[in-house]
Amino acid sequence: MATINENYLKLEKNYLFINIAKKVNEYKEAHPDADIIRMGIGDVTLPIAKCVVDAMKKGADEMGVKETFRGYEDSGTGYDFLKEAVSGYYESFGVTVKPSEIRINDGAKSDCGNIVDIFGDDNIVLITDPAYPVYVDTNLMSGRKVIYADSNEENGFAAMPDESVHADLIYLCSPNNPTGSAYTKDQLKVWIDYAIKNNAIIIYDAAYEAFITDEAIPRSIFAVEGARRCAIEMCSLSKTAGFTGMRCGYTVIPDELTVTASDGTVVSISQLWGRREGSKFNGVSYPVQCAAAAVFTKEGYEQTRENIKYYQENAKVIAAAMDEMGIKYTGGKNSPYIWLKCPNGMKSWDFFDKLLTEANVVGTPGAGFGKNGEGWFRLTAFGDSERTKEACERIKKLKF
Amino acid sequence: MATINENYLKLEKNYLFINIAKKVNEYKEAHPDADIIRMGIGDVTLPIAKCVVDAMKKGADEMGVKETFRGYEDSGTGYDFLKEAVSGYYESFGVTVKPSEIRINDGAKSDCGNIVDIFGDDNIVLITDPAYPVYVDTNLMSGRKVIYADSNEENGFAAMPDESVHADLIYLCSPNNPTGSAYTKDQLKVWIDYAIKNNAIIIYDAAYEAFITDEAIPRSIFAVEGARRCAIEMCSLSKTAGFTGMRCGYTVIPDELTVTASDGTVVSISQLWGRREGSKFNGVSYPVQCAAAAVFTKEGYEQTRENIKYYQENAKVIAAAMDEMGIKYTGGKNSPYIWLKCPNGMKSWDFFDKLLTEANVVGTPGAGFGKNGEGWFRLTAFGDSERTKEACERIKKLKF
Repeated sequence: MATINENYLKLEKNYLFINIAKKVNEYKEAHPDADIIRMGIGDVTLPIAKCVVDAMKKGADEMGVKETFRGYEDSGTGYDFLKEAVSGYYESFGVTVKPSEIRINDGAKSDCGNIVDIFGDDNIVLITDPAYPVYVDTNLMSGRKVIYADSNEENGFAAMPDESVHADLIYLCSPNNPTGSAYTKDQLKVWIDYAIKNNAIIIYDAAYEAFITDEAIPRSIFAVEGARRCAIEMCSLSKTAGFTGMRCGYTVIPDELTVTASDGTVVSISQLWGRREGSKFNGVSYPVQCAAAAVFTKEGYEQTRENIKYYQENAKVIAAAMDEMGIKYTGGKNSPYIWLKCPNGMKSWDFFDKLLTEANVVGTPGAGFGKNGEGWFRLTAFGDSERTKEACERIKKLKF
Repeated sequence: MATINENYLKLEKNYLFINIAKKVNEYKEAHPDADIIRMGIGDVTLPIAKCVVDAMKKGADEMGVKETFRGYEDSGTGYDFLKEAVSGYYESFGVTVKPSEIRINDGAKSDCGNIVDIFGDDNIVLITDPAYPVYVDTNLMSGRKVIYADSNEENGFAAMPDESVHADLIYLCSPNNPTGSAYTKDQLKVWIDYAIKNNAIIIYDAAYEAFITDEAIPRSIFAVEGARRCAIEMCSLSKTAGFTGMRCGYTVIPDELTVTASDGTVVSISQLWGRREGSKFNGVSYPVQCAAAAVFTKEGYEQTRENIKYYQENAKVIAAAMDEMGIKYTGGKNSPYIWLKCPNGMKSWDFFDKLLTEANVVGTPGAGFGKNGEGWFRLTAFGDSERTKEACERIKKLKF
């Protein structure tokens, strides 16, 4: 009899976004004229830069001509032209990663989830709480033990390691989703030292790096000494260049990253991942890779940075509103997220209801991201500029 | 200490295509003027149909305009417009699958490999031999026991179940890669009955269905009674529409397909897969989905079928050469592959060497696909028409 992976049955059913949609729909039915402003989902809204669209169209045209048609990609890990572009991008903020250390994928979420394949199920996994639910769920699916490091008001929602606790795999996300906090170089160095001491591997999600403005905040974990011995970095063009619907990201695995197997064999993580991808992945669509490469041209960089600036302005508007109201928050700077403390000890979902019914603004209850999220709330800067301002005006009028 | 998934260390290193490339390169270095014809790798060579390219470009343009920009796909399982198109395609050969039973993915290989996630590691996996290496490797990576059903000369390289053997997961590929053989409806019915008796699930790879010309050969396992209770079907536009570099396929999971968990819970495979995809996948690029949908329009169908006819003519040319030489083979009909018996009891790699050095033609040694492949050889019909004819002329002149 076929059996299922019963770890799936132990997963908590994460109804966060389903519940939000349900509540919003119910409210809209009862109040069909309500002008609802959505600041909940972490999705971009500005269109793809023109030169990026043009590059994709050129790639599509090449596919339609026998002489320039491209079938299977030889390596399945990305075309050299794109790997070199990504490598050049890293170089632009002072980090050296070789093109051969870069794997092109269809988005950070896929590799974040799939990376668990190459590790043993006996690893103890350390995840900061609150967190992007993918880290927890994909490890529970493999039957791994997950432990948590608390991100909370006291530490500015930037959890640090507890030296008395052992972990084998460590998930860090900086700038953080959902809390908007970003690790300094010194903080990351503490995590790297902890990882090296524990022979652990850090899986570092840098999906929001393009929002970093503060020079003291590293854009990559590989800007910090020691990271090449203990870290894998995942990044994506989703937030950097509005690729949430285009689907392209990259994973960086340093050549020197190894794990020793039980028989003493020293195993290259890069080669191990290559073996996985060789059997379970066939590369990213060629025209999508053309589009992605255009993001890293001078023109593409300028056009995409315009969009990021637009979102950063929104973040400032929201942060200013919070300041005006005397509401505590993290993020807003170096991040498209504003993670705010619900006033007067309100619970996350109560604040959600109040915002929805009294201001017609939709956000995301922090409780949906882990236990330390209770009493907190996420607003995103990815909306329309005028609508973001309007939402802030409405929120400021609320009585708590 | 981080540990790796040590099942990876037990994988046989499949050097098939690496060895082929090495031998070809060495020969080319020694004979720089040799005019080598490649009939080895199963990749298409004709460009994407014009209306498909146009649809992708239109999709790209939409991404560049705020009003039509698309971010994250809500479901991550494919846009309705594409699911409906695929459903309509099934209907065109008399098979009913609902759009909601179709999951859009980035190619059959990904889902073929990733589907193992949702099943228990205690399943006994039955795979026909020879086979596409992905089926074996992805199950060995999960530590599963793999057993084989022999496809050989006696059964026309169409393995049938041994009723005395039990299996839980069964991989079938028809038309088959590498053997080109295709199951009849009656043969598939035997497999389905066997699966139902064993409470097993069939993972059916229909990637080559577009090459079927014989009406007695089903285009989908769902054309056969009982399949909806025991089968998952994977298909791809790679061979149907030249999408090897575009990356789009689909998986069909019938609503009624269930497995009973150890606590008696009846679990929907469709929902289980949805849970996996929700954590490890974020959908296919929107412009790629636009391109895929265009394949199923009247114009797209006509244009892509022209390409398939072209390859089918190549297959006929190769088959005719084999007939003329008195060489036994399967495939050539209903398949882009010709799977031939090496003359005079030659071994696969010896035949490879002879073909390379005496005819400057590159094919694929059957031994690379499993033990029953030894002494057999795969040629593909995906090449240029004139070059295929030339290759056949050269092969016909060889002395054995």
